[in-house]
Amino acid sequence: MVNYPNGTRKNWNAAASGAGGRGMNLEKDINQTNQYYLNCDTAVIHKKPTPVTIVKVDYPSRSAAKITEAYFKVPSTTDYNGIYRGRYIDFEAKECSLKTSFPLKSIHLHQIKHLEACMRHGAVAFLIIRFTHLDETYLIPADRIVSFWYHHDRSSIPHSWFIENGYRVEGNYIKPVDYLKVVDRIYFEKGGSTSDGEY
Amino acid sequence: MVNYPNGTRKNWNAAASGAGGRGMNLEKDINQTNQYYLNCDTAVIHKKPTPVTIVKVDYPSRSAAKITEAYFKVPSTTDYNGIYRGRYIDFEAKECSLKTSFPLKSIHLHQIKHLEACMRHGAVAFLIIRFTHLDETYLIPADRIVSFWYHHDRSSIPHSWFIENGYRVEGNYIKPVDYLKVVDRIYFEKGGSTSDGEY
Repeated sequence: MVNYPNGTRKNWNAAASGAGGRGMNLEKDINQTNQYYLNCDTAVIHKKPTPVTIVKVDYPSRSAAKITEAYFKVPSTTDYNGIYRGRYIDFEAKECSLKTSFPLKSIHLHQIKHLEACMRHGAVAFLIIRFTHLDETYLIPADRIVSFWYHHDRSSIPHSWFIENGYRVEGNYIKPVDYLKVVDRIYFEKGGSTSDGEY
Repeated sequence: MVNYPNGTRKNWNAAASGAGGRGMNLEKDINQTNQYYLNCDTAVIHKKPTPVTIVKVDYPSRSAAKITEAYFKVPSTTDYNGIYRGRYIDFEAKECSLKTSFPLKSIHLHQIKHLEACMRHGAVAFLIIRFTHLDETYLIPADRIVSFWYHHDRSSIPHSWFIENGYRVEGNYIKPVDYLKVVDRIYFEKGGSTSDGEY
């Protein structure tokens, strides 16, 4: 590692992994991967826009409408959905800055309910969790998270649970989070080890 | 009809069917219908949030983050998607204030491309068009709109085309736009008259 004399590196680190930037890298990586899937006509999966309540809009002459007052809304569903190999895909993605566990409060109850409803209707539903400090990304079938949610009286899920119940998602610089490779394996190949379809 | 002495009725009309309110009634009706489908566990279909580019956010003490500068983005996909009877559902809804034709400029090229991509991957994809002054709502399978888009050198689709190629969507006060009834008929019943699956 080289210490940059002008401190550039430190700033770059702060921007990339500080509290402000954290949580955005997984999203950026998934968006890039989805764009790759879209370009290759592999799947049509998009992130939903951030839900906001718009209160005030200005219409300055000769320019675009400008929203001058709006508030973030709590999302009622998950962030990503779309279609792959004829199946409806639905998932939520979360980054976790802790090394030993994932706090369950990161996921809202209505998101759990939404994933359950999707599964009842035949969706491929899951979570993507990244442990940022370990640089490990897992795909967890929704039925397992839902089951944990209802059967454990804990406020967080230990990291070891992800090793046992999740599937590591690998990637490269073109598709940083190649989650469909995992989806292929566990939802489309015979003998896949999730309880898909039996929920 | 009673003319309200204080002019209330006139104002109410302006709000409900004037340029500002127009375009919102179909959305409201579809949202209410989707909520009914969700409550009855018939389907999980949501409207995506309006996409905005957030430029500036204030964090006033002791209150929620306030967005003070944001702009509307052109949507890159359609407005509604979800899952029904194991199939991925994707559609766009548009109100039309003309009586004789629907202007094609209401639909963006990238929305047509998006519907095409969804169809290639096995989606149930369609448009819902309401002629507000005629109080007629039609479901049009996406393949027909796409075909019209590529094969006609017109800037609008005549109303008569919708009678021939669309399916009237009825409703009631509980589910104002009961489009899944039409989806059942044309995508799930044998002998359905759309080219579903043959696109």
